[in-house]
Amino acid sequence: MLRNINPILSPDLLHALRAMGHGDEIVIADANFPGSSTGPDCIRADGSSASEVLRAILSVMPLDTFVPDPALTMQVVGEPEAIPEAVADFQTIIDEVADNGAQIQGLERFAFYDRAATAFAIVQTGERRLYGNIILKKGVIA
Amino acid sequence: MLRNINPILSPDLLHALRAMGHGDEIVIADANFPGSSTGPDCIRADGSSASEVLRAILSVMPLDTFVPDPALTMQVVGEPEAIPEAVADFQTIIDEVADNGAQIQGLERFAFYDRAATAFAIVQTGERRLYGNIILKKGVIA
Amino acid sequence: MLRNINPILSPDLLHALRAMGHGDEIVIADANFPGSSTGPDCIRADGSSASEVLRAILSVMPLDTFVPDPALTMQVVGEPEAIPEAVADFQTIIDEVADNGAQIQGLERFAFYDRAATAFAIVQTGERRLYGNIILKKGVIA
Amino acid sequence: MLRNINPILSPDLLHALRAMGHGDEIVIADANFPGSSTGPDCIRADGSSASEVLRAILSVMPLDTFVPDPALTMQVVGEPEAIPEAVADFQTIIDEVADNGAQIQGLERFAFYDRAATAFAIVQTGERRLYGNIILKKGVIA
Amino acid sequence: MLRNINPILSPDLLHALRAMGHGDEIVIADANFPGSSTGPDCIRADGSSASEVLRAILSVMPLDTFVPDPALTMQVVGEPEAIPEAVADFQTIIDEVADNGAQIQGLERFAFYDRAATAFAIVQTGERRLYGNIILKKGVIA
Amino acid sequence: MLRNINPILSPDLLHALRAMGHGDEIVIADANFPGSSTGPDCIRADGSSASEVLRAILSVMPLDTFVPDPALTMQVVGEPEAIPEAVADFQTIIDEVADNGAQIQGLERFAFYDRAATAFAIVQTGERRLYGNIILKKGVIA
Amino acid sequence: MLRNINPILSPDLLHALRAMGHGDEIVIADANFPGSSTGPDCIRADGSSASEVLRAILSVMPLDTFVPDPALTMQVVGEPEAIPEAVADFQTIIDEVADNGAQIQGLERFAFYDRAATAFAIVQTGERRLYGNIILKKGVIA
Amino acid sequence: MLRNINPILSPDLLHALRAMGHGDEIVIADANFPGSSTGPDCIRADGSSASEVLRAILSVMPLDTFVPDPALTMQVVGEPEAIPEAVADFQTIIDEVADNGAQIQGLERFAFYDRAATAFAIVQTGERRLYGNIILKKGVIA
Amino acid sequence: MLRNINPILSPDLLHALRAMGHGDEIVIADANFPGSSTGPDCIRADGSSASEVLRAILSVMPLDTFVPDPALTMQVVGEPEAIPEAVADFQTIIDEVADNGAQIQGLERFAFYDRAATAFAIVQTGERRLYGNIILKKGVIA
Amino acid sequence: MLRNINPILSPDLLHALRAMGHGDEIVIADANFPGSSTGPDCIRADGSSASEVLRAILSVMPLDTFVPDPALTMQVVGEPEAIPEAVADFQTIIDEVADNGAQIQGLERFAFYDRAATAFAIVQTGERRLYGNIILKKGVIA
Repeated sequence: MLRNINPILSPDLLHALRAMGHGDEIVIADANFPGSSTGPDCIRADGSSASEVLRAILSVMPLDTFVPDPALTMQVVGEPEAIPEAVADFQTIIDEVADNGAQIQGLERFAFYDRAATAFAIVQTGERRLYGNIILKKGVIA
Repeated sequence: MLRNINPILSPDLLHALRAMGHGDEIVIADANFPGSSTGPDCIRADGSSASEVLRAILSVMPLDTFVPDPALTMQVVGEPEAIPEAVADFQTIIDEVADNGAQIQGLERFAFYDRAATAFAIVQTGERRLYGNIILKKGVIA
Repeated sequence: MLRNINPILSPDLLHALRAMGHGDEIVIADANFPGSSTGPDCIRADGSSASEVLRAILSVMPLDTFVPDPALTMQVVGEPEAIPEAVADFQTIIDEVADNGAQIQGLERFAFYDRAATAFAIVQTGERRLYGNIILKKGVIA
Repeated sequence: MLRNINPILSPDLLHALRAMGHGDEIVIADANFPGSSTGPDCIRADGSSASEVLRAILSVMPLDTFVPDPALTMQVVGEPEAIPEAVADFQTIIDEVADNGAQIQGLERFAFYDRAATAFAIVQTGERRLYGNIILKKGVIA
Repeated sequence: MLRNINPILSPDLLHALRAMGHGDEIVIADANFPGSSTGPDCIRADGSSASEVLRAILSVMPLDTFVPDPALTMQVVGEPEAIPEAVADFQTIIDEVADNGAQIQGLERFAFYDRAATAFAIVQTGERRLYGNIILKKGVIA
Repeated sequence: MLRNINPILSPDLLHALRAMGHGDEIVIADANFPGSSTGPDCIRADGSSASEVLRAILSVMPLDTFVPDPALTMQVVGEPEAIPEAVADFQTIIDEVADNGAQIQGLERFAFYDRAATAFAIVQTGERRLYGNIILKKGVIA
Repeated sequence: MLRNINPILSPDLLHALRAMGHGDEIVIADANFPGSSTGPDCIRADGSSASEVLRAILSVMPLDTFVPDPALTMQVVGEPEAIPEAVADFQTIIDEVADNGAQIQGLERFAFYDRAATAFAIVQTGERRLYGNIILKKGVIA
Repeated sequence: MLRNINPILSPDLLHALRAMGHGDEIVIADANFPGSSTGPDCIRADGSSASEVLRAILSVMPLDTFVPDPALTMQVVGEPEAIPEAVADFQTIIDEVADNGAQIQGLERFAFYDRAATAFAIVQTGERRLYGNIILKKGVIA
Repeated sequence: MLRNINPILSPDLLHALRAMGHGDEIVIADANFPGSSTGPDCIRADGSSASEVLRAILSVMPLDTFVPDPALTMQVVGEPEAIPEAVADFQTIIDEVADNGAQIQGLERFAFYDRAATAFAIVQTGERRLYGNIILKKGVIA
Repeated sequence: MLRNINPILSPDLLHALRAMGHGDEIVIADANFPGSSTGPDCIRADGSSASEVLRAILSVMPLDTFVPDPALTMQVVGEPEAIPEAVADFQTIIDEVADNGAQIQGLERFAFYDRAATAFAIVQTGERRLYGNIILKKGVIA
């Protein structure tokens, strides 16, 4: 553990976050997400919820302000406007913790998978709630 | 995740437990334990407490009945008879979950480190309580 | 070996099953299947029949309910409607063991090979019966 | 699979047997043996019994005739003269299959572990009978 | 060396043959063939002729009966109907040793190279005769 | 870069600091120190002074309070009581930044090398001042 | 450190520069650049500014004279003619240090990313100024 | 060093030449050639001229007689008919040393780079003369 | 293959011989020798006899003249003065081919194994004659 | 190649020299030296003499002034006071090029080998003169 750094950020997760640059994206995935086969490095965080990981990541990672959609979740299939509980929770955490305000945008399910495949890394959490996945785009530190 | 298997058991942890044989030992280490430098493979479980990991491991791993001390914790320095809260918690979990009853035995601090160095693997948890470490010896499945 | 886990599930197979997510597929291949050259990781299970491996895998892995065909076998060449003995056996095991009922669907031989090439892993069994191959799609654990 | 070669001999096991020379030893271990931590390469054969693997290995590997004890098993603790069922079975198989007759010799338990640690490889079987372990020393092919 | 197995089959070659499945192909290449740059794994057999290796491989590997051309050689440039001495020798060995009769078919030179590039492995022999190359397709063991 | 984390802490350095546990030690080495041959992993920080790296490390890493000497420098050869400028600087930084007060202790030159050889990692800085090396022992985060 | 060689040139950076040939390009990237995900090897230089690294590299690496644009920077988005402070600084350093005079040319932002993806290596500096990135093409040493 | 083998042929170079087959090509590159980024394995020979390496390689490697152009150099840009000194030197060495006479053919500069990218290996010499590069195609040993 | 180099010298064997220096030793081992477990790199030459390999190696490798025993064979157990056929053959080849005359010296069996364990490499031949092993010490090329 | 850096210093050699610290040693070995089996990394420089490499290394590497013997050669066996031509040449080069004057000291032959085994790296040159080996100890850059 380190001083002033959320201990949920494991050595590998901290390494990935520090190595990411402007525009790189990280996926926080729920426990059912196919994180090992999607392509990017998969960092295990089985003991944490997606919300805990989101809070920890946003405590150190800036959100991108160059794009309108630095935070992306998966739309409910057939109900693109619905807001699952996990997503509502994510928005609350962003509002509380993020360096820059951001309105979560929804991606159609398969578009979400395609986007995840180009990410810098995937954090596989133990999140059990449905639709508990979010993609974050790293911003700039001036 | 898998059916009937505690999801705290990550792919690497499950692999280690399944590959261990009779007499092999695993260390459940707290968040301050030097798990990366002790020698055995270090499996991260930053988001779980030692108690949660102990409960999950004992749900699948038999405790050895060939030795009198299949569960070892670190003695409080200067108070070898003291029972830290974490250790009391461990005993309760063993009593509830283990396939074989076992009385936790204490090891002097440096003897504990030496024993950990010969283990099959170390699980580094996010346990914050002091003395939140335990070594388990795997038993036989008849 | 582990408590409550079928010992046919070797360390590598258990690791793969645990790491798979929703929608990932695993191939149970017979002894003549070209498992090493198809692409995915090939896990050896030479001493087990495909039926034994199927029963062991279904004891821990949920079948996908989001698609109509979570279990796929290879059609007999020239007789797409025929049901080889191994396939009949597979259907019985699914009916007995799977968490969700599923009707096995047949794939034309080369379509089966192409599908296997995109799987998460291939388990190469010692199955000697013809057409003793099956692809399973992992489901969600709620 | 190959013609005239027992299919229990997997690619890795066949490679090891072919690479071994005069005096090299292989361990056939039961399902509880700590095969991954003993030192030599561990080849998984979870779906086969020790007897099946013994029969398959002896069908291709000569037993050493330069030493009086080319086949070693573990003595029952406290009863060094007892003959466990698995060991009796091993002797029968050697008598039937081996190129050279050999009388199994017993090693004290910890001497057996030490000997296994210097072997060429360990085959971890799914053998469930107690004391289902045997060390074989490879002989010469003239 | 092993009992009843041709000692020309080295550990790596035996491993490849055992790992191959139905439809996988292996190239026996002469000493001038560009075996290291063609793509598949290249197994050295510098001290053996192609005929010796062919005889050894066919003693354990079944030829495919599902295709009309399980054995392919390179046509003499400009004389596609000519039968080089090495090829005549190959046909004799197949007639004597193979589990299934097969008539060698010729491939145009560059088609042969392209076919070799998709093989499971290439065995680079010390064969000095011209056109001393052959591709074999593995069959099924019932 | 990350929010609230000194950017001198590169991905590899941050990973090492986070993976270190209670009692692990890290060496901050000057530009002439033989960091690549001493044994531990060597993390390059050629563009930073030892003082800058010390300040960055102490901003996240606790100093051990279980020992009287959690910060060690190399004694001037022949003048064990002398305080080189770099060491004086190190003491000032510790006084300002460390979570726990600590009085730097001197080690004889070769004892320092031996101690460095057992460290978790070595950070090779661009420090040009003589005796610009320091060993820090990580403490506990309660 | 070495005589007559700028110590900012770390072992890995010196190796890359020496291994580069005529026409190979190196990227000096600022602290926010996504250096780890762009493709080429990423060499960390977190403690140095882009200007320091540029000066060090040009002290040993010739600039290409076969092309009109051996030094490329990123154009300010929306103001392609603007000259950011960092870029002005880069031009001054080239004028002072480079073996061949060169006028920096601007590349549109995404063209710059694409060009960086084909570079020999990326040096990730601690540069905090905006637009602190430059691509250099290596020239010939006669 | 070995008897009767030019000592300029280092272990790696000798290995590559011996592993090459009929039609494989090797590039002898001058000191400015981008040998590390072109694609094939790059074997360093910094202390030798291209002429020395050419002489050493031709002492053991046959030139291909199946093609009209087994030796290719780069045409002078803008003067495709010019013969640089290095190329004239190469022709003299081929005339003296090669097993088969061959007239060097010129390739346009970028065609030369493309051809080099498909070679078996590149030998990076210390050749300082301009256009000191040559591609050789290996022939057959009857 | 290469001009003027015995084609029994495979790429790996040629690499080893070229990399060896004064005093390094190579073992030519018969088909029963435990070449994979003795320690040094094991180079397969299954299709060649020890005599063929000896002749090929001596055609390029000088024998050491600084010691009285640059060629060592294994003494017949119980008959240290006996000269097995293979050894007599080795002496003839040395007399014919070696750059320096050398009288083969015998080593007691286990001394031979110990010596082999310190060799540069082991060549595992297909030699079937008993005692078909020899250790050669490389000499100097002036 | 690089500006102002002797091109005999290859990428790997330059990397080693830059990574070495105060007190690390490098061996310049002649063509017969057993550089691959001595232990340290072996960097090939087959096309250069030991004198050329010595001159190149001393142009960038400081000699240690903390010890009386920063340059060591091998004594002529039986004539410890003799000065071989190569050693005389080395002394001249040190006198001309080294940053600090140093008198070469002789080491008995086997003491030289033992010292070489603890070096940072060995540069294997093409030096043909006897006793063409030298060990250099790196000094400090103030």
